[in-house]
Amino acid sequence: MTSLFTGTGAEPSARVAFAGNRLQRLSEKRPAGCLEDALSAPETRIFGFIGGKLLLDTRQGEPQAGRSLSAFDALSPDRPNAILLGYDKGVAQVAMPLKADVETLPEGLEALAPRGLYLKHLLPDETVGIVAQGAAMVNWTLSSQFCGVCGGRTVSEAGGYRRRCPETEGGCGTTLFPRTDPVVIMLAIDETGDRCLLGRSPHFPPGFYSCLAGFLEPGETMEDAVRRETHEESGISVGQVRYHASQPWPMPHTMMVGFYAQALSMDIAMDGDELEDCRWFTRQEAVRLLERIEGELTTAPDGTIANRLLRDWVARS
Amino acid sequence: MTSLFTGTGAEPSARVAFAGNRLQRLSEKRPAGCLEDALSAPETRIFGFIGGKLLLDTRQGEPQAGRSLSAFDALSPDRPNAILLGYDKGVAQVAMPLKADVETLPEGLEALAPRGLYLKHLLPDETVGIVAQGAAMVNWTLSSQFCGVCGGRTVSEAGGYRRRCPETEGGCGTTLFPRTDPVVIMLAIDETGDRCLLGRSPHFPPGFYSCLAGFLEPGETMEDAVRRETHEESGISVGQVRYHASQPWPMPHTMMVGFYAQALSMDIAMDGDELEDCRWFTRQEAVRLLERIEGELTTAPDGTIANRLLRDWVARS
Repeated sequence: MTSLFTGTGAEPSARVAFAGNRLQRLSEKRPAGCLEDALSAPETRIFGFIGGKLLLDTRQGEPQAGRSLSAFDALSPDRPNAILLGYDKGVAQVAMPLKADVETLPEGLEALAPRGLYLKHLLPDETVGIVAQGAAMVNWTLSSQFCGVCGGRTVSEAGGYRRRCPETEGGCGTTLFPRTDPVVIMLAIDETGDRCLLGRSPHFPPGFYSCLAGFLEPGETMEDAVRRETHEESGISVGQVRYHASQPWPMPHTMMVGFYAQALSMDIAMDGDELEDCRWFTRQEAVRLLERIEGELTTAPDGTIANRLLRDWVARS
Repeated sequence: MTSLFTGTGAEPSARVAFAGNRLQRLSEKRPAGCLEDALSAPETRIFGFIGGKLLLDTRQGEPQAGRSLSAFDALSPDRPNAILLGYDKGVAQVAMPLKADVETLPEGLEALAPRGLYLKHLLPDETVGIVAQGAAMVNWTLSSQFCGVCGGRTVSEAGGYRRRCPETEGGCGTTLFPRTDPVVIMLAIDETGDRCLLGRSPHFPPGFYSCLAGFLEPGETMEDAVRRETHEESGISVGQVRYHASQPWPMPHTMMVGFYAQALSMDIAMDGDELEDCRWFTRQEAVRLLERIEGELTTAPDGTIANRLLRDWVARS
């Protein structure tokens, strides 16, 4: 019998941005007061967020992300909405929403979206992974201040990992849990295995082509979502679908799931609302895209799952 | 070069419960008034839901799910929260929340959770798939009546596929989208490939063992979630992780994602809060579980992704 487990290299999901988070989250094992304990411990590492953006301190040269709580005193830390992310070798790591204005930060401080942090290699991969978790939790927390069932004001529990609409304050008792939105992203390959399908959204920079993608719908398998989205956007029919990798994508709280899709047709009938171009690329053309040469057509950068899908397809021999 | 796409049988995700939904959802292409148009068309098929349960009419012999709107007149249809699910050969399919009480339904009517519908084979697979979509959308709709950002009352848009907190009524303008919660479910296999790891929750019926599972956390790859959950619940370390299948699971709006996990250790250190037993089963023992013999140990029924993972592992030769 062949083994279920083959291949020796790192799994594709370990080679994408935001995959480096190694915190002990202990999300089911959190006593009351765990966040307050963390906030009063001097060694606790605080990550400040303004909306979905991380506060970065560049005053000492190397950009600093996690700081002690006092470093945020002047930036209106929103303690009731802080989230205990987990522990790194026993040291608590906390995401702290700040009510400061991105436009008026003191000299040497800036707020960056997680994507920019990764692309600019400003922080170690493990820290970028913690930032992904923090950004997703902050986004969810700020959009869960009120109960969707009854409109009551919610309160933080389990260090911010749950919120409750408290019956003691006239609420309905509903518990709210963090939200992660699955998005399928796929590279359709033609039946000869020599060409792949890429499109460009009107929002992309000039000359930029990438994989098609879309949110999973309620009541749908991921494979059906790949077939539906590919057909809706490009008119291409998809047969088999093969899983490749997954990636946290904290803008605001998404999980990307990457697939190869077997194209059963070649004639593109593009949805002009979603795409402004959609084309087949040969393997050689895909290699050129990945080289990201100034002035030529290009594709998604290293660390994105779209890049991983394209790069791993090109590398198959 | 070997093809990316191999195997000739139906994909595992096509062989699980709730995978049979073939509606044209057109969720991005819905004009204002599409729900009202659907509700006024006599051929439109209405699925009534009480909470997450489908209303089933058994008065004419064969259980009936989709009915015309007038069939629900006496059951307090909640029209502002109705959802246009999509179209089957041009005929609109609508999920209609009912404010009726499950306990006092008229003779011949009953409300069933989607899981029961599937297990009892009461409806065709395609209809069960529509019910999964409907149940997930109804659950999300009823828990999104108020805006989480500002507490304002939300209104339905795009036939119930979005909700908005309207600025014209003092709201903050936030748009709410349907929610799908990813859960990883995994069968850990020992290094010889001869034994698999199953556990039992205190909530399971006597003698019932199934795959370990847990919600994906924000900022986590699915593979890391498989390793984390397996280790948390059983103490077993996992190396490689291999995707198998996905399944809509509308209780309330989950997506199950099934994996095989390569166990790197054999000594179980069970989390007694989550599990009341956790054991290695040989292939022969797993076959017996799948036979579901009265009075013996047993496992998850056909249609569940846990059953699929176990059955497909046993069938490998």
